[in-house]
Amino acid sequence: MQVFFSETQLRHAPHEFLVRGRWQPCPEKPERATALKAALDAAGHEVREPVRGPDAAIAAIHDARYLAFLEKGHARWRELPGASDLIVPNIHPTRRAAAYPESVVGQAGYHMMDTACPIGAESWPAIRASADAAIAAAELVKAGTRAAYALCRPPGHHAYADMAGGFCYLNNSAIAAQILRGKYDRVAVIDVDLHHGNGTQGIFYARGDVLTVSVHAEPANFYPFFWGYADETGEGAGKGANLNLPLPLGSGDDDFLAALDVGLRKVRDFGAEAIVVALGLDAFQGDPFAGLKVTEGGFNRIAARLGKLDLPSVLVQEGGYLCPELGRNLVAFLEGFNA
Amino acid sequence: MQVFFSETQLRHAPHEFLVRGRWQPCPEKPERATALKAALDAAGHEVREPVRGPDAAIAAIHDARYLAFLEKGHARWRELPGASDLIVPNIHPTRRAAAYPESVVGQAGYHMMDTACPIGAESWPAIRASADAAIAAAELVKAGTRAAYALCRPPGHHAYADMAGGFCYLNNSAIAAQILRGKYDRVAVIDVDLHHGNGTQGIFYARGDVLTVSVHAEPANFYPFFWGYADETGEGAGKGANLNLPLPLGSGDDDFLAALDVGLRKVRDFGAEAIVVALGLDAFQGDPFAGLKVTEGGFNRIAARLGKLDLPSVLVQEGGYLCPELGRNLVAFLEGFNA
Repeated sequence: MQVFFSETQLRHAPHEFLVRGRWQPCPEKPERATALKAALDAAGHEVREPVRGPDAAIAAIHDARYLAFLEKGHARWRELPGASDLIVPNIHPTRRAAAYPESVVGQAGYHMMDTACPIGAESWPAIRASADAAIAAAELVKAGTRAAYALCRPPGHHAYADMAGGFCYLNNSAIAAQILRGKYDRVAVIDVDLHHGNGTQGIFYARGDVLTVSVHAEPANFYPFFWGYADETGEGAGKGANLNLPLPLGSGDDDFLAALDVGLRKVRDFGAEAIVVALGLDAFQGDPFAGLKVTEGGFNRIAARLGKLDLPSVLVQEGGYLCPELGRNLVAFLEGFNA
Repeated sequence: MQVFFSETQLRHAPHEFLVRGRWQPCPEKPERATALKAALDAAGHEVREPVRGPDAAIAAIHDARYLAFLEKGHARWRELPGASDLIVPNIHPTRRAAAYPESVVGQAGYHMMDTACPIGAESWPAIRASADAAIAAAELVKAGTRAAYALCRPPGHHAYADMAGGFCYLNNSAIAAQILRGKYDRVAVIDVDLHHGNGTQGIFYARGDVLTVSVHAEPANFYPFFWGYADETGEGAGKGANLNLPLPLGSGDDDFLAALDVGLRKVRDFGAEAIVVALGLDAFQGDPFAGLKVTEGGFNRIAARLGKLDLPSVLVQEGGYLCPELGRNLVAFLEGFNA
């Protein structure tokens, strides 16, 4: 399968993030991408460097103030007396509307939902390059290629139009879906990452032209906690165009596939003409996040069902963390998709 | 003046909080209360231990789930593998509605707006005792005493009905105002703390029976960043019953008093029959937060104008941080009020 990836994506390398009150090593490391790319190379997939995509493709999904914060916030943060190397928010307008403050401390809390999306001096070029990979894959599919894979890293599905979270900054899957919308009237995003695709859901929640489906670990005791429940079905013109399929922690292949089948029926009923697969590999039984128990064979089967939709498809890398099987799972997925 | 304070309030002693990405010593220390009490003792004010107030006085302002989190969250937090000693939130439903998660990590982010309200094992008894001081002062005033002072610590004015923030957990000023409402139809909260009283504003924002007025440092580049602007005037039945009077950073006595005069006209026009003074001392020129430049004499004059309203008055301690003049400023305030 045609793969898009740029070494520029490796420049984002935050060394730590805050969780449960302590700094911990950040699992969303550049080595994730290196491992995935090595496996793709070994399996014979052609990896191409994406050209820089049009700013308009990103601005079609993301808020202008948010983009300015992502690009220029770090330099302003570093001017604050006593500030850390990485932007880490410390105040948030929780469940409230808020005025937009001048302070970069305030803007950090306005535009970041958690402490798992630290921003360093080299983050923006990598974030942008990751989105460019998604744009290139989507443009290729829009031009008539049946499927393409974007090795996006950092990932994107927790990012809202105006807010980062969960290692995500630009919502690569949403950007790809919007590009497909330039050709197809009805597009579906199918998110098989371990975690609920809350950002993608949020972006399309009030739209009826993009269906969002997410199979994920039940969020009551799992990231992102506040969203991903079955009763979130969309609003306004988007009512009925969001489907969450939460699974009990520890669920394996069969439960995942059964939920996916429900999602795929919805995709067909919706009349999707093209799809984006938000391709997390962290539902794997050996993933450090240890939420679900999907196997390598499970990924192959998941992908086979997605492939059988027989629709123009953009596969966008989301989560999936360092473990010996990470690259193999991706290769198994792509094999299943093309089978 | 009759003063209420309990040594139990000293048990809350978080050693650090996260700001600009770094752990810093927490300025909201027990020693604040010790210094204030020593100055009150020296000035001859009678300090009494409050009796435990009725739970209903707190439940009249605060959400039941939030109270359960404050009381029992720490024990649950400490059961999490790898969790810190203090509850520090790391994920927030920023500017979004959210489902209520089972996870205490999720609940922490649901109920805390920032990392400046850490909760330790001894926090709840102290938080509760601080509210009890406010309840005792309010009950005394409700019973006919002209004025009383609650040496509340931790403070309260950043706490919403269901959310902690800025060293605040229970909104002592709001609890006092609600008690006064049991006797008086129209009550005003006048907040002279350096920081906007966003929690108090939030609690009464849609109510027309409690006027909230706040004089504070302009929030565009100052805590709480998202609220405290002049265009926040209330909503629904509360439309027109919130008045924010932000001052440029570095403003001194004359500017503060001019803004206060605007606020006091509003209090009179509103027809307030009793007042709560949210009595921060951090607008002081020597306060570590260094936002405004009010002097000891300025506090005396501020208090004199509040006293001249000649209304039943509950004075509730809010901010004001360790500096040599902290206790003297309080004594000057109480002298001015009684003059």
